[in-house]
Amino acid sequence: MTAAPAAANPTAAVLIVGNEILSGRTKDVNLAHIAETLMGIGVLVREARVVPDLEEEIVAAVNALRARYDYVFTTGGIGPTHDDITSACVAKAFGVALELNAEAVARLERHYAPGQLNEARLRMAHVPAGATLIDNPISQAPGFRIGNVFVMAGVPQIMRAMLDGLLPKLQGGPAQHARTVACELAEGNIAAGLGALQDRYPELEIGSYPYFRNGFFGVSLVLRGTDEARLDAATEELAGLVRDLGGTPNVTHGTKG
Amino acid sequence: MTAAPAAANPTAAVLIVGNEILSGRTKDVNLAHIAETLMGIGVLVREARVVPDLEEEIVAAVNALRARYDYVFTTGGIGPTHDDITSACVAKAFGVALELNAEAVARLERHYAPGQLNEARLRMAHVPAGATLIDNPISQAPGFRIGNVFVMAGVPQIMRAMLDGLLPKLQGGPAQHARTVACELAEGNIAAGLGALQDRYPELEIGSYPYFRNGFFGVSLVLRGTDEARLDAATEELAGLVRDLGGTPNVTHGTKG
Repeated sequence: MTAAPAAANPTAAVLIVGNEILSGRTKDVNLAHIAETLMGIGVLVREARVVPDLEEEIVAAVNALRARYDYVFTTGGIGPTHDDITSACVAKAFGVALELNAEAVARLERHYAPGQLNEARLRMAHVPAGATLIDNPISQAPGFRIGNVFVMAGVPQIMRAMLDGLLPKLQGGPAQHARTVACELAEGNIAAGLGALQDRYPELEIGSYPYFRNGFFGVSLVLRGTDEARLDAATEELAGLVRDLGGTPNVTHGTKG
Repeated sequence: MTAAPAAANPTAAVLIVGNEILSGRTKDVNLAHIAETLMGIGVLVREARVVPDLEEEIVAAVNALRARYDYVFTTGGIGPTHDDITSACVAKAFGVALELNAEAVARLERHYAPGQLNEARLRMAHVPAGATLIDNPISQAPGFRIGNVFVMAGVPQIMRAMLDGLLPKLQGGPAQHARTVACELAEGNIAAGLGALQDRYPELEIGSYPYFRNGFFGVSLVLRGTDEARLDAATEELAGLVRDLGGTPNVTHGTKG
C-alpha cells in the first residue's frame, strides 16, 4: 500500500458496484458514510464511481482508481447470487486467481446450520489469491483487502460494520476540522466577499451550499482545513462579512448548519 | 449528438460535481431521480461519477464520459460563488470559450430586483459558446446543453425542474419493463435456481436485492427487459421456483417490493 507522508492527507476513492444504483431502484447511502468516517481519520475521498454488474466495467474502474488513490473502497456485489461478481473482477484486475479461502469457509460453516452451506454460499468464501479477510460481524461472509483495495458488502449495516473493523488498520492523516457559518443571505450577495476570503485563505476549502428550509432560503458556508487557528480566523472574518451585509451569522463547529 | 438506433436503448452517464458530496456532508439524491426518469423514456444510465470542485477533474470526467455514452448529465457547480466552476470546465472540455449569454442575462434581469444582478450572479449567465439554455422555472439561472452534455443545477428541486423540461428533447429507446418477486427466502437458497433462470433468459437483467424489514429478512428479485412476454414468462418461472423452495412469492409490476 502507498503510505502517505505524515504531512499530507491520504486519498481514497469509493467504487459502488450495482445495477440497482444505476437504475435508481436503490439510493446509495454508503458513499456519504464512508466519506464522513474516513474524514474522521484524515483520509479524503476524492472520487466516487458507480458501475454496473459487468466484468469489464468493474475491472477497468478498480484498476483506474487503485493506480490513482491511496485507498479504494468498493461496495456491493459480494453476495451469493449470479450477479455478485465483484470478487472475481477484483481478482482479474490484480491478475491473480480467485481462490476458496479456508478461513472464510470456516466462518461460514460456523454461521450456517449443517447442510446450509451450499455451493452458492461458498461463492462468498472465494477471494483473490493473496487477499486478507475483512470481518463481517453481522452475517459472517467476509469482505477482503488486496493491495490498496478494500472490498465490502453493499448492505449498509454490513458495510458499516466492516468499515468500523478495518479503520484501525488504515493509515490516517492530519485531522480535518470544519466550521459552518449559516445565514439567511442569498448566495449571490455574499459571493464576492466569499471569493475574496477564499483567495486570502488558499489553504482552506470554502464551500457555499444554499438551502431552503422551513420556508426560508439561506446558505451554509463551510470552511475546512487542518490548521484550526487559520480556520477560526477565516470563520471570524466570514461572520463579520455576513454582519456587514445585514445578515445574522450562525457559527457552528462541524459541517452541519 | 450520437443518435441511437431505434432498436437499442440510448445510454447515459451522470456526473455529480461537488466537494460536499465527497465529504459526506450532502447525500446525493439526484442520481436515483435522473436514473428513474431516464429509464422512463428508455435511456439507460450506465455509469455515474462524483468529482470534486477541481478543474482538471471535471474536465477529464466530462471528456471521458461524453466520448462513451449517448448522453451525459451533470449536476452541481453552476451557482454564483467561487466554487461554482462547472460551466467554465465544460467549456474547457469542449475547447470553446465561456461567453456571457444574452438570453440568460435577460432571464436573470427579469428575476432579480433592479440593482441585484451583480457580478457574482452574472457568472450564472455564462455558458460555453454554442450551448443552448436549459430552462430553470424555479430560480431562472439556466442550465445548458452543449453537444451531448446537459449541465444542470445541484439543488434537487431545480435539477428536477430542469430535467422535466429537457426530457421531450431527448431521443428515447424501447420501453423498459420490470417485475419484482419478493419473498422471505434467503438469497443463498434461491441463488442456484436464479442463476439458471438468468441463463435461460439472457436478454433479461435479473438482480437479487436482500432486505431486512419489519424484523424479517427477505429478498427482492427484480427482472428487467423490453420484451414483456418474456418478462412475464420468466417472472412466472421465478414465482414457481420460490414456491418450490417453500416461499411465498409476492409479484409486483415495477421494481419496488
